[in-house]
Amino acid sequence: MTRWAVLGAGAWGTTFAQVLADSDAQVTVWARREEIADRIAAEHRNPDYLGDHELPRSVTATSRPEEALEGADAVAVAVPAQQLRATLGSFTSPLPAVPQLSLVKGIERGTDARVSEIIAEAGRVDPALVGVLSGPNLSAEILQRRPCGSVIAFPDAARAAAVAEACAAPYLRTYTSTDVTGVEIAGAVKNVIAIAVGAATGLGHGHNTTASLITRGLAEITRLGVALGGHRETFAGLAGMGDLVATCSSPLSRNHRLGLALGQGLDVEAAAERVGSTAEGVATARAVASLAERLGVDMPITRSVVAVVDDGARIDQVTAALLSRSVRPE
Amino acid sequence: MTRWAVLGAGAWGTTFAQVLADSDAQVTVWARREEIADRIAAEHRNPDYLGDHELPRSVTATSRPEEALEGADAVAVAVPAQQLRATLGSFTSPLPAVPQLSLVKGIERGTDARVSEIIAEAGRVDPALVGVLSGPNLSAEILQRRPCGSVIAFPDAARAAAVAEACAAPYLRTYTSTDVTGVEIAGAVKNVIAIAVGAATGLGHGHNTTASLITRGLAEITRLGVALGGHRETFAGLAGMGDLVATCSSPLSRNHRLGLALGQGLDVEAAAERVGSTAEGVATARAVASLAERLGVDMPITRSVVAVVDDGARIDQVTAALLSRSVRPE
Repeated sequence: MTRWAVLGAGAWGTTFAQVLADSDAQVTVWARREEIADRIAAEHRNPDYLGDHELPRSVTATSRPEEALEGADAVAVAVPAQQLRATLGSFTSPLPAVPQLSLVKGIERGTDARVSEIIAEAGRVDPALVGVLSGPNLSAEILQRRPCGSVIAFPDAARAAAVAEACAAPYLRTYTSTDVTGVEIAGAVKNVIAIAVGAATGLGHGHNTTASLITRGLAEITRLGVALGGHRETFAGLAGMGDLVATCSSPLSRNHRLGLALGQGLDVEAAAERVGSTAEGVATARAVASLAERLGVDMPITRSVVAVVDDGARIDQVTAALLSRSVRPE
Repeated sequence: MTRWAVLGAGAWGTTFAQVLADSDAQVTVWARREEIADRIAAEHRNPDYLGDHELPRSVTATSRPEEALEGADAVAVAVPAQQLRATLGSFTSPLPAVPQLSLVKGIERGTDARVSEIIAEAGRVDPALVGVLSGPNLSAEILQRRPCGSVIAFPDAARAAAVAEACAAPYLRTYTSTDVTGVEIAGAVKNVIAIAVGAATGLGHGHNTTASLITRGLAEITRLGVALGGHRETFAGLAGMGDLVATCSSPLSRNHRLGLALGQGLDVEAAAERVGSTAEGVATARAVASLAERLGVDMPITRSVVAVVDDGARIDQVTAALLSRSVRPE
């Protein structure tokens, strides 16, 4: 795979284009906005998302999807979950019959679809070709080429290995998996737990409290993932625990910052305004809570986040309730 | 259990005396040094460890073990692992035939004994009476009565429940377990991983790297614990993942600080001097590495910590080796 298309020119899509270039690929980024495509193509920069950072020369860009996809051996998808169906639906042709690697974390509101399902449906491509990359991958650190690990899952192990090999930059240690569902659920739901952890910090709690929330958060992510057909081991690995711990440790994560603002007493509109956008975790929290209810899976932390975001529950009372149940077997 | 003895007047022993007092117990702390016992008894303070903090009135202290143990319904043990056998061996009488709750994290060098085994042997008490408390319990935060969870394990579930009930202060949510081995191994080995995480931070790595080390660290703790008869679920819970995440998140942990100094290029003597003491994790790392070798359990992170501490390996090369293996299934 020497020629990649990256769909989406946000921070993560552009950073991953650099990972691919560092793995010796030629990369064309598709940006919805022409001015972003032009800056990347002409100046090798994406100042809207990455400041002054200079991208490798082998990264170029276009605002025409067919130009990015033409001749690609593989496609990386980095369009936000809630906009993905409409975006792919607007493309005149189906996605090419090559591996499609999702970089997107989230669950679609209304349909409860996972991102790989959206890509197959809206991209009109064989589901066997669609996989996902996830792990403790804060994009600002990857942009600086700091070492980390990542899991690449496809339904077929050989395809996972081929894609993993193709994007193993010197600083990115890739592991393979066939558990697409587990990796996607882990990546989506961790954003919900990150809101709760941010809220606990905003309320003034310390590391004991946040570590407890992270631990019990992973337990509820695992329950949901297993109910949906994911493998238990996935949640104990880099795409599960690793990503959750990294996201909840970083004060830069949008979901963490949204939670922090909620914990400091702001309502959801004011919190979203401070963060600069509604974090993906809010949309996903609603989708996950409805999915969990439908499947009969107990997800008390997710339920609490939705209660605060949608029902105006007081965050201090919600946190107290989470932390003060009576003595019982773990 | 209305009358507790706490053996050991360090930061954690004294803090736990407050937890017990907040659970409506009368508590007598045994301090090896008479001046510490006197300050606690007379002024309700332990300035050597807890600064100006004022302890509840129902906490008193003595430097005579028999006085602390006389009439106790339960005993909490908070003497460092490597000194515990000699300390209990110096007591003129066996420990009383009441529940003995270990607060100690570590593995004895030379014998590879777990702390509960040392208590039963050196304390001359029935092993069925010996249990352990562990969890994401940074003592400075518990001293401030911030909410957290903790696991209490005894061989017998009813005894675990009785002890858990007896030390459930309003801010301490207790869970019960019968997996004494698992809880002890998790608590001991996390100190070794905390050194590695501190070192990665000292080398300038970010959250992606530390989250990867924490995740793979828990995997190796779990492998060892299961080989020793612990239950896999224990390691996914508060005493496993929870404690590991809290310890590795806190810049206050001695083991984390030791690792940080190593990562910044100090040798182990200089690092120990900066931290003010050899962290428990160093002694435990050696014990764990020998135990793992004997059992044939792969523990690459622990092995690397020992290589740096004892064999003068360069920490940057060790970290690079940990993070740069080739593509493979997770």
